[in-house]
Amino acid sequence: MANIKDIAKMAGVSVTTVSRVINNHPYVSFEKREAVLRAIEVSKYEKNINAVHLSKGKTFLIGIAIPFSNHPFFALIVEGIANEALNNNYKLVLFQTNYEEFREIEALDMLKQKQIDALIICSRICQWDTIDAYLDYGPIIFCEDTRDKKVSSIFMDHYKSFSKALEYLHFKGHRKVGICVGRRTGFNGEQRILAYRDFLNKINEPFESEYIFSDCYDFENGEEIVQRLINMNNPPSALLVSNDQVAAGIVTCSKEKRISIPHELAIIGFDNQPIAKIMNITTIEIPLVEMGRKLFLRAINNKNISQEEISVKLVERLTV
Amino acid sequence: MANIKDIAKMAGVSVTTVSRVINNHPYVSFEKREAVLRAIEVSKYEKNINAVHLSKGKTFLIGIAIPFSNHPFFALIVEGIANEALNNNYKLVLFQTNYEEFREIEALDMLKQKQIDALIICSRICQWDTIDAYLDYGPIIFCEDTRDKKVSSIFMDHYKSFSKALEYLHFKGHRKVGICVGRRTGFNGEQRILAYRDFLNKINEPFESEYIFSDCYDFENGEEIVQRLINMNNPPSALLVSNDQVAAGIVTCSKEKRISIPHELAIIGFDNQPIAKIMNITTIEIPLVEMGRKLFLRAINNKNISQEEISVKLVERLTV
Repeated sequence: MANIKDIAKMAGVSVTTVSRVINNHPYVSFEKREAVLRAIEVSKYEKNINAVHLSKGKTFLIGIAIPFSNHPFFALIVEGIANEALNNNYKLVLFQTNYEEFREIEALDMLKQKQIDALIICSRICQWDTIDAYLDYGPIIFCEDTRDKKVSSIFMDHYKSFSKALEYLHFKGHRKVGICVGRRTGFNGEQRILAYRDFLNKINEPFESEYIFSDCYDFENGEEIVQRLINMNNPPSALLVSNDQVAAGIVTCSKEKRISIPHELAIIGFDNQPIAKIMNITTIEIPLVEMGRKLFLRAINNKNISQEEISVKLVERLTV
Repeated sequence: MANIKDIAKMAGVSVTTVSRVINNHPYVSFEKREAVLRAIEVSKYEKNINAVHLSKGKTFLIGIAIPFSNHPFFALIVEGIANEALNNNYKLVLFQTNYEEFREIEALDMLKQKQIDALIICSRICQWDTIDAYLDYGPIIFCEDTRDKKVSSIFMDHYKSFSKALEYLHFKGHRKVGICVGRRTGFNGEQRILAYRDFLNKINEPFESEYIFSDCYDFENGEEIVQRLINMNNPPSALLVSNDQVAAGIVTCSKEKRISIPHELAIIGFDNQPIAKIMNITTIEIPLVEMGRKLFLRAINNKNISQEEISVKLVERLTV
């Protein structure tokens, strides 16, 4: 495809002259102007929008960094972001990070290099000191509690939500409660483990490390969890599962293994995904689509730093 | 954020001089060079990648036009595209079209304006004469059978797949077969309806327009379909459902209404989504992730036009 240099060459003029013709700048001779216009016509040269962006300093692109591109939790956040982007005529650039630090840095670099107007980080990987170096280059919005930082966020309080779910299980008579989580690291992961430890202290139960199942993300993980439960001498009577897909996997596999839910094993999920409704799973509803919408609006209008907490609610169904 | 004009102003030099310093061009005096470098340092000016792209003519961005951002069918294709983009260090620009023509044109325009290197259209809206005008600007890859066009595609033959499913239902003893589809328009929609009409002709059954349920996309549509079936004097004994989410909705709602599956109503879905596995739904498996992977590779390497058919397979479970 012809670029400005090709056009200049074809027309036998300088790049500056081509640029002047494109931008209707005066001081170009009639002949040179005609030569450039002919060259443009011939080569179907399109005024390169990247050059326009360079002068306007806006791309109307917003970056979204997500760990996985087809995970129901992030898919709902992306749905909210995408709907609001649609309303505001922005496009989205998707950064799938696979929880690899260098991929998050690539996204940060695109912000630094002005290829995107703002970046939404849905599940942070980099340490704050890495992030700090990018804060001057444009809005970076986070999906985690940043009330102790000078950055904007739309977040849910994972400590509070986890505590709420644990207390509900306790209220329903459970003392031997296990948890299934994704990452144990990261701010959200740490908050969940902390809520769990505080809950156990409060009800005077010992901390059993085998009651924590980590790296649980998908339906398929349910099978491994049920298998581990079956092999335990003293299995928990209830599981708090940090995502509905995993909860659905546990419920399905428990049925196959003839473990009665909720009598032998109570399950409470997280998110209120469509699957939780289909399978009648008790869950903590997180308004993820709404969260996505707010993340987007914050990304395009981040004049002041703000942190907004999104509240969750318990949806009682048949698995507790 | 400082741009090249701000730097020039700060350094007391022309924009051309700033540009020369950034690009290590000779013929810049020592003092001017120092002034520019100081100004850059002070204002943290970053060499704008959009300007770099302008000269290199490549953005490493691939556009994906999808009707909905969180639909399981497209989510799996996007997953395949995203995984392969990751392997090749490309980023994705998401165009959610909502099946609105002007939004697809926006995506085409971004290709024309070289903001993306290629465009993958997962479910086309524009007529071919609109598309034709953009074919010279960069690779456009389609998710539909384009064997009669000079454009590349990775596609499944909807006529063949629909026929296969209909014949399976017939083989299982069904003659009164209804279908649930998304759009009735569009090439894929038309192929499905054609396969259905040909099937009815072949088995000498009349075409009943009330046996076609259209605009079925989500789990929620299952409820409406079951309600309509209940109100029919002569309901179909089997339904071919063009997506597993809708099939899952029909199965769930049928259970609530005490309609026995497969005895009173047989269901065959499409895609082999995780939900079909969970709910033991007989379905036609489409390797969507693999399709996405191939779409991406075709987008970045489309020297010759090629059309590749993806084959589907029947997964027998418990709903037929």
